[in-house]
Amino acid sequence: MIIHMSRTAAAEDQARIYDKITAAGFQYEVIHGATGINVIGILGDLSRVPESYFRELAGVDKVVRISKAYKLVSREYSAKSKVIDLGGGVSVGAKELAFMAGPCSLESVEQMMTIGAYVSSMGIKIIRGGAYKPRTSPYSFQGMGLEGLKLLAEVRKKFGLKIVTEATGLHHHIDEAGNKEQRNVLENVIDYADIIQIGARNMKSYGFLQELGILTKDCKKPILLKRGDSSTLKDFLLAAEYIVANGNPNVILCLRGIRTFEEEKFQRYTPDIGAITVLKRESNLPVIFDPSHAVGYRASVPGAALAAVAAGADGLLIETHNDPPNAMCDGEQSVTEEQLRDIKRKADVIWNLFW
Amino acid sequence: MIIHMSRTAAAEDQARIYDKITAAGFQYEVIHGATGINVIGILGDLSRVPESYFRELAGVDKVVRISKAYKLVSREYSAKSKVIDLGGGVSVGAKELAFMAGPCSLESVEQMMTIGAYVSSMGIKIIRGGAYKPRTSPYSFQGMGLEGLKLLAEVRKKFGLKIVTEATGLHHHIDEAGNKEQRNVLENVIDYADIIQIGARNMKSYGFLQELGILTKDCKKPILLKRGDSSTLKDFLLAAEYIVANGNPNVILCLRGIRTFEEEKFQRYTPDIGAITVLKRESNLPVIFDPSHAVGYRASVPGAALAAVAAGADGLLIETHNDPPNAMCDGEQSVTEEQLRDIKRKADVIWNLFW
Amino acid sequence: MIIHMSRTAAAEDQARIYDKITAAGFQYEVIHGATGINVIGILGDLSRVPESYFRELAGVDKVVRISKAYKLVSREYSAKSKVIDLGGGVSVGAKELAFMAGPCSLESVEQMMTIGAYVSSMGIKIIRGGAYKPRTSPYSFQGMGLEGLKLLAEVRKKFGLKIVTEATGLHHHIDEAGNKEQRNVLENVIDYADIIQIGARNMKSYGFLQELGILTKDCKKPILLKRGDSSTLKDFLLAAEYIVANGNPNVILCLRGIRTFEEEKFQRYTPDIGAITVLKRESNLPVIFDPSHAVGYRASVPGAALAAVAAGADGLLIETHNDPPNAMCDGEQSVTEEQLRDIKRKADVIWNLFW
Amino acid sequence: MIIHMSRTAAAEDQARIYDKITAAGFQYEVIHGATGINVIGILGDLSRVPESYFRELAGVDKVVRISKAYKLVSREYSAKSKVIDLGGGVSVGAKELAFMAGPCSLESVEQMMTIGAYVSSMGIKIIRGGAYKPRTSPYSFQGMGLEGLKLLAEVRKKFGLKIVTEATGLHHHIDEAGNKEQRNVLENVIDYADIIQIGARNMKSYGFLQELGILTKDCKKPILLKRGDSSTLKDFLLAAEYIVANGNPNVILCLRGIRTFEEEKFQRYTPDIGAITVLKRESNLPVIFDPSHAVGYRASVPGAALAAVAAGADGLLIETHNDPPNAMCDGEQSVTEEQLRDIKRKADVIWNLFW
Repeated sequence: MIIHMSRTAAAEDQARIYDKITAAGFQYEVIHGATGINVIGILGDLSRVPESYFRELAGVDKVVRISKAYKLVSREYSAKSKVIDLGGGVSVGAKELAFMAGPCSLESVEQMMTIGAYVSSMGIKIIRGGAYKPRTSPYSFQGMGLEGLKLLAEVRKKFGLKIVTEATGLHHHIDEAGNKEQRNVLENVIDYADIIQIGARNMKSYGFLQELGILTKDCKKPILLKRGDSSTLKDFLLAAEYIVANGNPNVILCLRGIRTFEEEKFQRYTPDIGAITVLKRESNLPVIFDPSHAVGYRASVPGAALAAVAAGADGLLIETHNDPPNAMCDGEQSVTEEQLRDIKRKADVIWNLFW
Repeated sequence: MIIHMSRTAAAEDQARIYDKITAAGFQYEVIHGATGINVIGILGDLSRVPESYFRELAGVDKVVRISKAYKLVSREYSAKSKVIDLGGGVSVGAKELAFMAGPCSLESVEQMMTIGAYVSSMGIKIIRGGAYKPRTSPYSFQGMGLEGLKLLAEVRKKFGLKIVTEATGLHHHIDEAGNKEQRNVLENVIDYADIIQIGARNMKSYGFLQELGILTKDCKKPILLKRGDSSTLKDFLLAAEYIVANGNPNVILCLRGIRTFEEEKFQRYTPDIGAITVLKRESNLPVIFDPSHAVGYRASVPGAALAAVAAGADGLLIETHNDPPNAMCDGEQSVTEEQLRDIKRKADVIWNLFW
Repeated sequence: MIIHMSRTAAAEDQARIYDKITAAGFQYEVIHGATGINVIGILGDLSRVPESYFRELAGVDKVVRISKAYKLVSREYSAKSKVIDLGGGVSVGAKELAFMAGPCSLESVEQMMTIGAYVSSMGIKIIRGGAYKPRTSPYSFQGMGLEGLKLLAEVRKKFGLKIVTEATGLHHHIDEAGNKEQRNVLENVIDYADIIQIGARNMKSYGFLQELGILTKDCKKPILLKRGDSSTLKDFLLAAEYIVANGNPNVILCLRGIRTFEEEKFQRYTPDIGAITVLKRESNLPVIFDPSHAVGYRASVPGAALAAVAAGADGLLIETHNDPPNAMCDGEQSVTEEQLRDIKRKADVIWNLFW
Repeated sequence: MIIHMSRTAAAEDQARIYDKITAAGFQYEVIHGATGINVIGILGDLSRVPESYFRELAGVDKVVRISKAYKLVSREYSAKSKVIDLGGGVSVGAKELAFMAGPCSLESVEQMMTIGAYVSSMGIKIIRGGAYKPRTSPYSFQGMGLEGLKLLAEVRKKFGLKIVTEATGLHHHIDEAGNKEQRNVLENVIDYADIIQIGARNMKSYGFLQELGILTKDCKKPILLKRGDSSTLKDFLLAAEYIVANGNPNVILCLRGIRTFEEEKFQRYTPDIGAITVLKRESNLPVIFDPSHAVGYRASVPGAALAAVAAGADGLLIETHNDPPNAMCDGEQSVTEEQLRDIKRKADVIWNLFW
């Protein structure tokens, strides 16, 4: 940790800081700047000492941490890129583009059989679909619950697909009629999913992330963690660190779009394509991209999807629906079968440029 | 709901929309614009119909909702400003400025007795203090837990203060040594607090808000809901609506600062003082302001606190500490006893300008 | 223009609005909403009437403009994509990816001859280079001025390249020694450039844009207009409209990255890749992308460049330098010759996916 | 300047940096961190060396500047708060709240005489009014031009008021009919104004700021510089530095509201009240606040105005109009005479709390 003193700091200000450093069990070195500004370097493992411990002392201008706030998920800690093996020859972060597609929300057996069939016919190996839906409005459809998870299991069996589905922070699912499921939502999802998705709105629910890490410590099922729509990349990596530090190292980072100043709703969020390169450099975890939630309108999804692959993403998570205008959720951002096939074909060409 | 057609929409596009409207059981009226753009007004209660139901149809340029997305918390629904009565002559939203102060985190009996004494000596009637701490880093201090709640109860008794304390989304508190509390965090806080605080990071944990509404449906203990650091005001009001719609009408809105583009950390967040006027107009709920989390540095707290009162806030929530440099949490944004006394005196003068 | 009345509007509020509409020479139609909210549609050409003309009247909740604020640059006005012909078989917006590369700042004859040689050897036909540099700090290098423009002309002649260079809002260039050029900066650049670049910082200098439109009314030399780092897309299109409305229809839109909430400087700006699709749909002008100013660090430039092409950009504007560590300006975001060659090769493959 | 090396930097990386430092004529000191990260402090006057000079070298993680980028306007350079004396007992930054009010745009003699009368009757000593209007749309009213300046001079004489009016980046004003003024806009404004206002859109037009500094080097007429709606505070202070470094030390900083992520237009911008405290601490220049452009709607202006005074602003700049619904510009954010009187009375009470 480095302390920048202000130009007007007094000698006794500096002495007081030396005392506080040594009292806390650390050593220090000082650089006496030519323009009258001194810099104090504190030596030792300061991972549990907050910057604020020094920042408020008289004479201090700035305190800068040298080490990264995140550790286990950093490329500095482990340079090798992590590969998540899902079994059956399917993996994320390896030499094949990880392509995940499916509807926003599970609606019916018929819907899922139709989508499962066309998705698997394109060579896509992972299907998505939400059984529990966290909604901004308390008046919106909240999902099929446990029944939906069972439907996903059937689809997995029938088409040989892996499944990714979301767990929410709610303890017990309550349906439209007010009936409450007996079993905890998180435990249900852990049982059924091949990849457990954590939504953007829960990325900062640290208690929930801690619990998730602990509950999956033994099974180590992969967690697909989505970036909060206004989270910094540092906070995103710290959220991943929460899961890893609590016992489950298998985290997939999923970008999706951030909230910016744009007023006209030309697109729902600003797709954070640039963050792909940053995360691949800062972290050893696989990075995938969700173009559907990033742009929000079907016509913009292909462009964002291909851009993400060109920027170096390890995979895509795309919403598709057999009948978008009548989807119960996110219909306008779901691509059709035909669009999905075209994205898959072009994405494979771009992906191959890098191998 | 109003549909703006694009200038190039065909007659059959429009016909298809009419069909979809009537099929859904609604009626419509059309304005034929002079510049070739038509506008279709849909009549009926559309509160459960999303804009996306129409937006993706051919020929549609924009869909605009006329009614507010939030209802129970809106001033349109009930013009009268809500007063939250805490008993013993203390209330929020009434003719007295609601002044809440105390440390970020509960640390020890001695600390709380000292702070309780000086806070109550200034005529402040509500003390704050966190027993459960949601932290950005998994490596930071996580709070005293249930023991802290019991300490708060003692302070309440000794000084005749009301207490406000935070409930987190974690099911069961785990201390530094790894010991897990038997009882659910939320239920513990509901039992002990006079006002249950919900932190900014949980403002979008809709499952948690739903559970909170249901669990406090009978006791109706007031909920102090903090705005997420990047939530729009519409999403903030929808989060309050989640609690009210699930059974507890006693919600206090608390503003605190939003994340903006500022790079240098001159202040931690941008205090959203302007939102006070907006929320007082849009909603009937009381609106208070937390200057400590807004600006993040002690020297900037008094200015933000007084600005909030001048802008029409119903109250303040301020962090204070008897020994800020050695506080376990948020020391650099905690004001001293002397600063608190000065803020209180000036805030009262400003408050009286409006009565 | 559509007026949404508030639910609580009185009949006389509505009558007063009708009067104001007819007094201004327009007609209106009314939709009487089922939930008690009325909507008034105003008929006629309202392009010179601001929303505020009605918004502040009693009973009004919202005023929504139906027509686009920009006109001449919109795809609605002219569906055909504009092709900018630079002569000699070079164009922007046509079937070839428009690739522009060169240093941030002109430094010396040797530098430009080296860069000109390798750029043209790759099949790149447009070279960039700044003679006038607008700098955030008054203490930074301000450019070679007119001497630089003459150097560009030599490079053009020697390698058969087209040149793009920036005009600033300064009337007369002043060099480090305080000497002032006789001739207006803008007029100099118009004389020498094949494409006149307008920087992001001047995108909202409307007086300057107006003057630019008037001065290039006859020559109609193409203008490359960069998006302001915090401008909405609507404001960006209005800035283009300023130039077109004042006489020069040949505008190229250039995206480059926007300022967002990210704190750590992992990248200089957030590359607004998603805006490419939006602008191609909203406007008929060509859209190119500048990855160098978007991300700010050399290692991130290739990813952003390829992502832009995959998202549908008509071209790229990239900074390259023969000796980046010793560049006088933007060295850390300038790619090397080798990187440039690799970007060009991959970009061509991706571009061909769409034809 | 401080260089943070990465944990994985090699010894030869460090040696190469030492060489580059000494080659540039500077000295250095090194702190060898306990966790394997070294820190190099460079000694000397580095005000003309950009961070990028070192940042791109192998082994470098981060480069941090110790000295402020702005100098002459900083409180570090001169601790004493600057007072701007306008003559006739009127000043900004002194013991009286500087209150400036008037219409957005000059419209007619009658309008200005009415407003001049009520403004001066309240004890307000500075009137505002725009003769040249920079507008987002090329189709909006562009101002009265020179005729407006002459009208302002009459108002000044008749009511004994000082005048503040805006200079734009346009060289020569062009009216609706296409007639062009002979004389440069900036020179006209310098002649007539007591305070020369520079609008938010021109805050980054560095050429214009440089010219302004040079042209007012002798007269030293005060410049009221508005913050760009998306400028960081550092860039705002650097813009002020441009003017001061070119010869005119009399700059008044004016805050007004920033662009944030808020979607619903509850307020036009987010009033940056918190920046008042920051600027008063970082800089020695007076800081005033413009609530009208911050919030954009008349009903929200009083709250923002009083909040700014409570936060420590040295003055206010408010739009008022004798007939807001028929104002040619910004009518909906202009307060009435009655509102202005009420703001003035309350602002004076709050101001007196600090003296």
